[in-house]
Amino acid sequence: KYILVIPGDGIGPEVTTWGKAVLEKIGRDFGHEFTFDEALMGHAGIEATGNPLPDETLAKAKASDAILFGAIGHIKYDNDPSAKVRPEQGLLKIRKELGLYANLRPIMLFDELLDASSLKPEILKGTDILFFRELTGDVYFGEKKRSEDRNTASDLMIYSRYEVERIAIKAYEAARVRGKRLCSVDKANVLEASRLWREVVQEIAKKYPDVETEHMFIDNAAMQLVKNPKKFDVVLTANLFGDILTDEASQIAGSMGMLASASVGDGTGFFEPIHGSAHDIAGQDKANPLASILSVALMLEISFGLKEEAKKITDAIDKALKDGYRTGDIADANTDKVKILGTTAMG
Amino acid sequence: KYILVIPGDGIGPEVTTWGKAVLEKIGRDFGHEFTFDEALMGHAGIEATGNPLPDETLAKAKASDAILFGAIGHIKYDNDPSAKVRPEQGLLKIRKELGLYANLRPIMLFDELLDASSLKPEILKGTDILFFRELTGDVYFGEKKRSEDRNTASDLMIYSRYEVERIAIKAYEAARVRGKRLCSVDKANVLEASRLWREVVQEIAKKYPDVETEHMFIDNAAMQLVKNPKKFDVVLTANLFGDILTDEASQIAGSMGMLASASVGDGTGFFEPIHGSAHDIAGQDKANPLASILSVALMLEISFGLKEEAKKITDAIDKALKDGYRTGDIADANTDKVKILGTTAMG
Ligand SMILES: CC(C)[C@H](C(=O)O)[C@@H](O)C(=O)O
Ligand SMILES: CC(C)[C@H](C(=O)O)[C@@H](O)C(=O)O
Repeated sequence: KYILVIPGDGIGPEVTTWGKAVLEKIGRDFGHEFTFDEALMGHAGIEATGNPLPDETLAKAKASDAILFGAIGHIKYDNDPSAKVRPEQGLLKIRKELGLYANLRPIMLFDELLDASSLKPEILKGTDILFFRELTGDVYFGEKKRSEDRNTASDLMIYSRYEVERIAIKAYEAARVRGKRLCSVDKANVLEASRLWREVVQEIAKKYPDVETEHMFIDNAAMQLVKNPKKFDVVLTANLFGDILTDEASQIAGSMGMLASASVGDGTGFFEPIHGSAHDIAGQDKANPLASILSVALMLEISFGLKEEAKKITDAIDKALKDGYRTGDIADANTDKVKILGTTAMG
Repeated sequence: KYILVIPGDGIGPEVTTWGKAVLEKIGRDFGHEFTFDEALMGHAGIEATGNPLPDETLAKAKASDAILFGAIGHIKYDNDPSAKVRPEQGLLKIRKELGLYANLRPIMLFDELLDASSLKPEILKGTDILFFRELTGDVYFGEKKRSEDRNTASDLMIYSRYEVERIAIKAYEAARVRGKRLCSVDKANVLEASRLWREVVQEIAKKYPDVETEHMFIDNAAMQLVKNPKKFDVVLTANLFGDILTDEASQIAGSMGMLASASVGDGTGFFEPIHGSAHDIAGQDKANPLASILSVALMLEISFGLKEEAKKITDAIDKALKDGYRTGDIADANTDKVKILGTTAMG
């Protein structure tokens, strides 16, 4: 297997180092041959080549069997809304080029981390959600315009039937082998794109009579996720709403530092933590490498079908947490029973 | 003062009954003359006239000094994405027609309700946020299209400079007399409309050097609101992001049943609970009337400048809560020290 590592920006390089190390160890222990290559993207790509997704990176990505990605973004561009070339363009372009239309974000709770969340443990306990976020459509990829006098700006929120169908099918297939409940989130009381979304999901739902379907407005979903996260099993939603809901849900899981995601579609799978580049702690050996390591577990399971190997990883993380090891982001302020580690030691 | 009451749908009529009753009592106690009228909107408007915003309602609204609104929406339309006439159109149209471009949503915490939230009390305590949600632009009002074969649907997310300026000024003015911190929420790393938003806010910020400005991406904001709600003072955001964030924040306050909002702009102010029509409990004397009563407090303060009268209302609610009175939605499951009341008794 040929695995491309794209460290990206900020804490990306630190955390992918440990994701890769775990892959190497799994390779040795289970006798799999993993070969690695590395490539640039984001701010790192712009610095080296002027392009947030250099041609070489895209070529390597297309040739690889799976991609391990770190993080993207740089504060420099965030405060300059008029910058033409931006790190995030690299990530958006690779999603589109590789046809990564389905972003899977499992919200799993490690019992040891119940106290790290701002939600009450009794609200949290038992939460197990799998998000399917559409990733190559919506207002992210619709036409962007700025009037000549620069005083009016727009983005087109747009969906076509086939885009909704293919991700809905993936989500229903997953729901069928999980809790058999699917909640589709939209804003059909206001948006035409959401009305199409709902129509299509209603149709697909008919083919999965064993799965219970619920439709929820995004504002209500953002609320219910805090109020009663346990009620969700599979959540299916559009690109923008998924971006917002999954970050919100990450807090429910105690920390973004614990959440991995898999982007899949037509070809090569793409695996990344859901946390961002966190420049404020980059290079200080403070970042939590567990989301990158969990991304590797998702890669083994989803791209290579190696379930036992994936479980070995989650078990090891479970054990480390049980033994009281924590990075700063998941340490509960109220207890002094835990041992705080840096990136390297945790990795 | 001529006040128009628009009960709307679902629990709207029940809760506005009590909002109005409180206005009458304030009028009697303080010697103000309030005259009332009533009008239809939403599903109620469609049933009576075929129009979610009947002409008569709009005419009365324009003539009134302030409007007390209940709730809108009906499950019938939610499950039929192809319905052409929808209750929500009434609300959207009246916002536009009255130029109600700024929606103020204060998130205030009654100490007695700390336990009703799913967040830990120590995370919550001290939270005091004032949202400024833009209300007459964004993807809500941009052009909607459906292709002829009905397989592609779109909504235009669009903002113009003056729309951002006028609400930013209102938000900064409020921040100046509150905690002097303003957080503007956008998705400028992806959306052109957000980049314009950020540019304009950066410009206005220069005129308020005494207010500390922060720019945050919507995904991060949705997370930070759960992680550390205390860090926010004034939050300024666009229509869609505001819809999502304020509903999420409502859960932080314990219940949507406790939150009021004021929509203001060029003319008549419009006051409503942030909760929806809640058809599942409509007509059962279960709805919490406090958000409607708090909407009346906002009306007295914002539209009529009657601060003392407004305080009388919030003090009365405070006392009722201290005395242990609760509606079902704000009763803490863990305590049996509270007395559960219906809508009428609480009103
Ligand atoms: C970096 C940004 C473009 C990206 C997104 O909005 O999709 C990120 O927030 C994510 O969720 O992967
Ligand atoms: C009913 C709906 C159109 C409305 C909105 O999205 O603005 C509601 O959710 C609100 O927040 O007032």
